[in-house]
Amino acid sequence: MKRVDLNCDMGESFGAYTIGMDDAVIKHITSANIACGFHAGDPLVMDRTVKLAVEHNVAVGAHPGYPDLQGFGRRNMDCTLEEVRQYVVYQIGALQAFCAANGTRMRHVKPHGNLYNTAAVNEDIARVIAEAIASVDPELMYVALSSTKEDFMTSIARDVGLTVVYEAFPDRAYTSDGTLLSRRLPGAVVRDARVVAERALMMAKEGKVIAVDGTPVDLDIQTLCVHGDTPMAVELVKAIREELEANGIVVKPTGDV
Amino acid sequence: MKRVDLNCDMGESFGAYTIGMDDAVIKHITSANIACGFHAGDPLVMDRTVKLAVEHNVAVGAHPGYPDLQGFGRRNMDCTLEEVRQYVVYQIGALQAFCAANGTRMRHVKPHGNLYNTAAVNEDIARVIAEAIASVDPELMYVALSSTKEDFMTSIARDVGLTVVYEAFPDRAYTSDGTLLSRRLPGAVVRDARVVAERALMMAKEGKVIAVDGTPVDLDIQTLCVHGDTPMAVELVKAIREELEANGIVVKPTGDV
Amino acid sequence: MKRVDLNCDMGESFGAYTIGMDDAVIKHITSANIACGFHAGDPLVMDRTVKLAVEHNVAVGAHPGYPDLQGFGRRNMDCTLEEVRQYVVYQIGALQAFCAANGTRMRHVKPHGNLYNTAAVNEDIARVIAEAIASVDPELMYVALSSTKEDFMTSIARDVGLTVVYEAFPDRAYTSDGTLLSRRLPGAVVRDARVVAERALMMAKEGKVIAVDGTPVDLDIQTLCVHGDTPMAVELVKAIREELEANGIVVKPTGDV
Amino acid sequence: MKRVDLNCDMGESFGAYTIGMDDAVIKHITSANIACGFHAGDPLVMDRTVKLAVEHNVAVGAHPGYPDLQGFGRRNMDCTLEEVRQYVVYQIGALQAFCAANGTRMRHVKPHGNLYNTAAVNEDIARVIAEAIASVDPELMYVALSSTKEDFMTSIARDVGLTVVYEAFPDRAYTSDGTLLSRRLPGAVVRDARVVAERALMMAKEGKVIAVDGTPVDLDIQTLCVHGDTPMAVELVKAIREELEANGIVVKPTGDV
Repeated sequence: MKRVDLNCDMGESFGAYTIGMDDAVIKHITSANIACGFHAGDPLVMDRTVKLAVEHNVAVGAHPGYPDLQGFGRRNMDCTLEEVRQYVVYQIGALQAFCAANGTRMRHVKPHGNLYNTAAVNEDIARVIAEAIASVDPELMYVALSSTKEDFMTSIARDVGLTVVYEAFPDRAYTSDGTLLSRRLPGAVVRDARVVAERALMMAKEGKVIAVDGTPVDLDIQTLCVHGDTPMAVELVKAIREELEANGIVVKPTGDV
Repeated sequence: MKRVDLNCDMGESFGAYTIGMDDAVIKHITSANIACGFHAGDPLVMDRTVKLAVEHNVAVGAHPGYPDLQGFGRRNMDCTLEEVRQYVVYQIGALQAFCAANGTRMRHVKPHGNLYNTAAVNEDIARVIAEAIASVDPELMYVALSSTKEDFMTSIARDVGLTVVYEAFPDRAYTSDGTLLSRRLPGAVVRDARVVAERALMMAKEGKVIAVDGTPVDLDIQTLCVHGDTPMAVELVKAIREELEANGIVVKPTGDV
Repeated sequence: MKRVDLNCDMGESFGAYTIGMDDAVIKHITSANIACGFHAGDPLVMDRTVKLAVEHNVAVGAHPGYPDLQGFGRRNMDCTLEEVRQYVVYQIGALQAFCAANGTRMRHVKPHGNLYNTAAVNEDIARVIAEAIASVDPELMYVALSSTKEDFMTSIARDVGLTVVYEAFPDRAYTSDGTLLSRRLPGAVVRDARVVAERALMMAKEGKVIAVDGTPVDLDIQTLCVHGDTPMAVELVKAIREELEANGIVVKPTGDV
Repeated sequence: MKRVDLNCDMGESFGAYTIGMDDAVIKHITSANIACGFHAGDPLVMDRTVKLAVEHNVAVGAHPGYPDLQGFGRRNMDCTLEEVRQYVVYQIGALQAFCAANGTRMRHVKPHGNLYNTAAVNEDIARVIAEAIASVDPELMYVALSSTKEDFMTSIARDVGLTVVYEAFPDRAYTSDGTLLSRRLPGAVVRDARVVAERALMMAKEGKVIAVDGTPVDLDIQTLCVHGDTPMAVELVKAIREELEANGIVVKPTGDV
């Protein structure tokens, strides 16, 4: 039986500031990537978000980013490999403490924003993130962009002794070589809910996405990234989940038995 | 045989900024309280300091403070109990990850600066810190100010199921009721190295300190706090350790067998 | 002819985070207190908010707070007088540059959150804020809580050579001694729009507020503080302005001719 | 008569952290580039440093950097032009307030660290910095790297209506095309005090530097950048100044009559 995980970035509020409809989207997803206080999130938000995930049987993961709250971790910071390593270790640890305090166990790590984007194309960064994860807990899974182009993740995972979980984006357009179409280009984001749900199903069922030029591209996919920042986004997640389950896909956290 | 621990605040550097002579003082102490990035320290400094402690067989502890780098955690922030709880959980976790990455285990938690001072006189704050520590790992010891005046730590420790380690300050003057003389008063800090070493010995050997008015005060003491911020301070730590060992006191981390 | 100013805190967004409905509320107010990057706001938000004020002929003021983004400047930080002074100087200057860049001139300074509350009852803090303001530009007006109880503002203003603008809160309950009823007490915030508009009118027309026990209290009032954080709050501001103007009160910035 | 300015980065301390020997180096320089709280510096340090400059008749300039205290503004942040613009406006304003409070007037702006390096090779960034400076005060001078390679500063200065002050580095090796030898290459920093002083003199007197391959390179130079971070560095500044004055060079701030 086919299965897939639905992951969503959560816990991105900070102090008096709110981002995301965590309470609504949590009902429809199976994995939460929780911000760790560098690009978003704070200790109170982290605790609250871990509790929310535990209540809804959603797998908890760390969502480490660059130390840039003002830029929400979205702009590149030219960090050394050593800086990236220790930033990831730090943020994983911080979230692990909230897992411990709430009687759960962290399951995965997914880099955020520009750190994610950089790791998707830069083998050194990807490797140092993998090493950082493994140095804290080799049971943690590394969520990385599924791509036909960058194939260094397999060897990194093997070298470092880590499980990689490949991710795809149902609402993002792909090029025929299996990479995401740049957000700067028109059509980069698919907005039709029905189309997104169908793409999600094709990703989960066939490990396939139709590129912008019509080419079918095979991708290794274990988790689908969804969003919860607007009421419409939440509705979309609900639609995706229903589409998946209506078509016999088991939706549960990667690694769950 | 009498024993005592020598603890020192470490890892207080940040980015391009250096505070403390960690490399020098580490040779003479048995426990390091490592800053966790809120009032001081950053991920690179934390990793480096944990490595340094491991190399020198020094017990690693977290030194959580208020989120106030500009004030070095020394000024009061009127945080709610919930904020204090989650700030402590977060910082413990962050340092635990560096312990895991460096193959060691965190042993204790000692609040920093104004958080320490507040916890010494405010039972609610002390309790929420204790609960935060226990929620992450009940094996962690809570380093608290030894005092004849505030006796809530015993019941907190019992209620929360945590070991409290009582701390005294060889270089600080005490009042006859067993509390620290305010730093704002003259004579609050003892500067004569010989006198400090003798006070350290009396603390370790007899559990006693001579107050400013000459009264001997009995204190429960398992660890002595020393400083490593100047070459002179480091010399003083060396002198204290030699004085202790020359008088048959075993100097090792609390809990070590 | 009676006149009054309507002021509102604005520019409290930060990076990807949004707080406040600045675009909506700006149409109804006459003075904007703009956050300066310590408790809220960032350089892009500051520039955007100054532009918005200029477009709507709204007087620009600085809204300096404690350096505590995580606490939104609402919790007390035990800063020294020197720290408060320099924090205020810094934040005024930062906003002045955006005024210069946008061809306008800063008109007033209103401390934010806990800094405002502390200044309302602590003469030393109030004085150092006044001195900070005057040291940068003695033409700037200091917006302070109108109160029958604390009367140090008159002498501070005279000593420092600064104009103080007294502020009242139409939606806050007052005690019979002319101070704000603590937010922790029931009824501290008046929620009925009609009642709030009537209170605003009485404040502007008669310099009077009816305390919780029914006592009429005379207050010196030049500006009324309103809010723009929800659609309802914006509606309320509109209602207040209409009520004032329908009753012949001139609503314009303090100092405007 | 030949003249030159000696500028030094100052006010880089932060809270409890000290960087730089400002009190010592101030005696030998003519312009201070003062950090503004983004990559270094805080309001208390800024006030103290402006006071120090005023006391020693040293011209005050702003030294704006990226908002990255942890990286000391030395690593690249991929900011938008709009972000760079507003970051520069903000930081200039903050320092201007301390100038006003201390009865002096800001004279120049010199970008810090990676912002400086980027501006030296990226015309768009250089232009937006120039526009930011001019938008706050067109009398401010823009200190930029003198280079035979990038010649966009002349047209930017003309377009924006700003005076550019060209800077050279006596202790840095140059390539034959008039750019700085990368710090990653051996010999990038000249350490012999005597050689550095001679290079400074040649720069001031002849507008010339000898490149690493022996080629003499003509540069437009009005100010020399010196350092004050170590006792040796301070000694070197003293030696440079003495060498310059012994050879009839007038050492004073650019623009001074």
